[in-house]
Amino acid sequence: MENIKELIDTISELLEEHNYKEIRSTLKDLEPADLSLVLESSPKKLATLFRLLPKDLAAECFVEMESENQEVLLSSLTDNELKLVMEELYIDDTVDIIEEMPANVVKRILSNSDAETRKTINEILNYPEDSAGSIMTTEYVSLDEDITVADALKRIRRTGVDKETIYTCYVTKPDRTLLGYVTAKQLLLADEDTVISDIMDTNIIFAITNVDKEIVALEMSKYDLLALPIVDKENRLVGIVTVDDAIDVMEEEATEDIEKMAAITPSDKPYLLTSVFTIWKNRIPWLIILMLSATFTSTIISSFEEKLVACLVLNAFIPMIMGSGGNAGGQTSVTIIRGLAIDEIKLGDIFKILFKELRVSILCGATLSITTFAKIILIDHYLLKIFVDDSGAILNLDSVIPIALAISLTVLLTIISSKLVGCLLPILAKRIKLDPAVMASPLITTIVDVLSLLIYFGIASAFMLI
Amino acid sequence: MENIKELIDTISELLEEHNYKEIRSTLKDLEPADLSLVLESSPKKLATLFRLLPKDLAAECFVEMESENQEVLLSSLTDNELKLVMEELYIDDTVDIIEEMPANVVKRILSNSDAETRKTINEILNYPEDSAGSIMTTEYVSLDEDITVADALKRIRRTGVDKETIYTCYVTKPDRTLLGYVTAKQLLLADEDTVISDIMDTNIIFAITNVDKEIVALEMSKYDLLALPIVDKENRLVGIVTVDDAIDVMEEEATEDIEKMAAITPSDKPYLLTSVFTIWKNRIPWLIILMLSATFTSTIISSFEEKLVACLVLNAFIPMIMGSGGNAGGQTSVTIIRGLAIDEIKLGDIFKILFKELRVSILCGATLSITTFAKIILIDHYLLKIFVDDSGAILNLDSVIPIALAISLTVLLTIISSKLVGCLLPILAKRIKLDPAVMASPLITTIVDVLSLLIYFGIASAFMLI
Repeated sequence: MENIKELIDTISELLEEHNYKEIRSTLKDLEPADLSLVLESSPKKLATLFRLLPKDLAAECFVEMESENQEVLLSSLTDNELKLVMEELYIDDTVDIIEEMPANVVKRILSNSDAETRKTINEILNYPEDSAGSIMTTEYVSLDEDITVADALKRIRRTGVDKETIYTCYVTKPDRTLLGYVTAKQLLLADEDTVISDIMDTNIIFAITNVDKEIVALEMSKYDLLALPIVDKENRLVGIVTVDDAIDVMEEEATEDIEKMAAITPSDKPYLLTSVFTIWKNRIPWLIILMLSATFTSTIISSFEEKLVACLVLNAFIPMIMGSGGNAGGQTSVTIIRGLAIDEIKLGDIFKILFKELRVSILCGATLSITTFAKIILIDHYLLKIFVDDSGAILNLDSVIPIALAISLTVLLTIISSKLVGCLLPILAKRIKLDPAVMASPLITTIVDVLSLLIYFGIASAFMLI
Repeated sequence: MENIKELIDTISELLEEHNYKEIRSTLKDLEPADLSLVLESSPKKLATLFRLLPKDLAAECFVEMESENQEVLLSSLTDNELKLVMEELYIDDTVDIIEEMPANVVKRILSNSDAETRKTINEILNYPEDSAGSIMTTEYVSLDEDITVADALKRIRRTGVDKETIYTCYVTKPDRTLLGYVTAKQLLLADEDTVISDIMDTNIIFAITNVDKEIVALEMSKYDLLALPIVDKENRLVGIVTVDDAIDVMEEEATEDIEKMAAITPSDKPYLLTSVFTIWKNRIPWLIILMLSATFTSTIISSFEEKLVACLVLNAFIPMIMGSGGNAGGQTSVTIIRGLAIDEIKLGDIFKILFKELRVSILCGATLSITTFAKIILIDHYLLKIFVDDSGAILNLDSVIPIALAISLTVLLTIISSKLVGCLLPILAKRIKLDPAVMASPLITTIVDVLSLLIYFGIASAFMLI
């Protein structure tokens, strides 16, 4: 990062000196991801700098830019320049860009693409959001099954330059039905006269256009694939998803899950580029829902208010009990949510998981319950002397023990029930096809708060403390 | 997944019929990741099934297995069988396996590898845990800069079969100093007589052996690389990390961060294979720490106990205030933690972030504060009638309004301070080189609980309610 900052300074100095030759030679050696940062740092000179780039690098850099800057840049390019950039872009990148642009810019992009590209773009735009079809590219290498390896290599040499990957080549029938694949490694290592159908692998992992892109990424990760073919319902090859896009999907999905787990409406924009108003909009709904749902806890507490006067100190432990329950439930729910997300846990495992969590919760509950008891006696009673009667005199140990027991027992039962709630809710959500990620700590906490209060006051009554 | 279950049933039927021919022909067409599931489902027949596999598939399947099963299997293979499997494995996979095995098994693996492999394995094992060196493989294609494309292709054909990837070839000096790279695509598309140094890209992204593997994965994702070269301190190429391993690293790191955010000690074992005792061990430390830290809240509440009797209903809103503060702080901290993890937020942005969060927190706080006020008056007072005096008579609106105002003001200040705490702590953690992920909801909640209580009781006193 330090280098990028230095580079940005160098470039702006060179811009002041109008030393475009030096700028051109500095920029042309940069990686597109870094180059976009350099260009975006001088918004006023964006188009000037962009025009200094060789056209293939210009296109790659364009893809890496934020959509605001892409829009600004597009508006300052001539139709001819725009056409040159568009020709260099892969279809899936063009579609990504188009999806973020206002209608007039989209129209201009489309009218500057050739008829075939325009048709393909429109087809991809028609696939549902977040589907395999919406992220695929149509620029793959397809081979006939009856040609030789030498012919295949010839074909790759002829058409490969425009393909997003040439490392996995797809063997199709003339009607584009997917038959199998060969890798560039196989082609390079095989004898030149070998017929493709003899070396192709027919055990092919593929996805249908309307499958969720998250599943595509998971499959690619599971089977270590560099590209995954996407077929239509008639098993005809329509595109491929390459591993770099799969990685982006995985990163986005992990971020989305993390945001949902923290009660935030996910957004796909980087934090620093999101406006304060948008961040507020993404965060406030859950805050309000969770705040309103606290009506349950306040109603429970206020209905026990009169009774509580008999043993007001019980009050002091409510945050600890709720906190422990929330933390314990959160641990479980997050473990299950992540397990479901990376396909490590299946819905069919529900009883195995419940039994496991029951045992873990008893262990955790017991440990915490014993620690709480010891802590109340040693710290709260002997050290901090918080147990006092109405006159302010310190209670003796015999009076403190029932209170400590009631609190410890509450902790035990709260931990067990929190962990079971934390385990069941994400699985239930998954079963009814909701996103399990929303069943994380904040929601679990709210439910656990109510449960723990009911347990607490129930036990306190049973111990005749209130 | 349904298919795998059916397959497992079919295989166990075939095993009962001793129909090994059919088993062999069924298994040989499976993907390694699926095959390992099938084999692992019949632990007693693991070795029998494994022996039916062709040796390359056997090795690939072995890599995908859980380490317990690998260990069982290794102990039932003869030295000769073990040698065959080891020969098929890539070095990085062998190292991964060795890292999980007990000493006697490691000894047996090493004594069944050839001298050179043994040396390489030991070198890789010596790199620090989680470093680039520890996950790299040494099986890459290296080329001299002065050979032609035709020679390069010849070399790939001769040595490529044992290389983990042939798609990025590294150009090195005779002393292995890294000069640049060429891709298989460039080689295939270039003229046969071109000299490598004329087409190689010298702008090469690389990492040093002791760099954290997470950074390697981030760089590969950022620059869309299929492989990243790893060099020693003298810039000599020692290995490469391939994209499939980078994906695994990304997935593991995301899971680890999520676990840390939920106050769990991360483990790299799948949930269902982790023992109840280990899960307990990973969860209990934080539960105890957070429970003990609740001593602060209970001390604060109990010290206000006598005063609280004057307006006992204030008690009923403590969970709501603490919950809202915890949720608001959690939202911010998780956003910052994730931003730092995927390199979207830099330490240098601290003031930009603080200013942004301050504005967001004022917006969120104001919204929530107004909602709370309305909710207290409309729901709690008019609908639920929870505001009563000592005699049980419902308070009039004039007496409820100051209470509602005190609570709303507390909510406003709690949200603002929670968000600032949630913003500052992860950044501070990063600055002092701690993992920001531990500064997530559970810890934030505990701090916010104390803060919000102090604000609450402070305001209540100022409003002369207590």
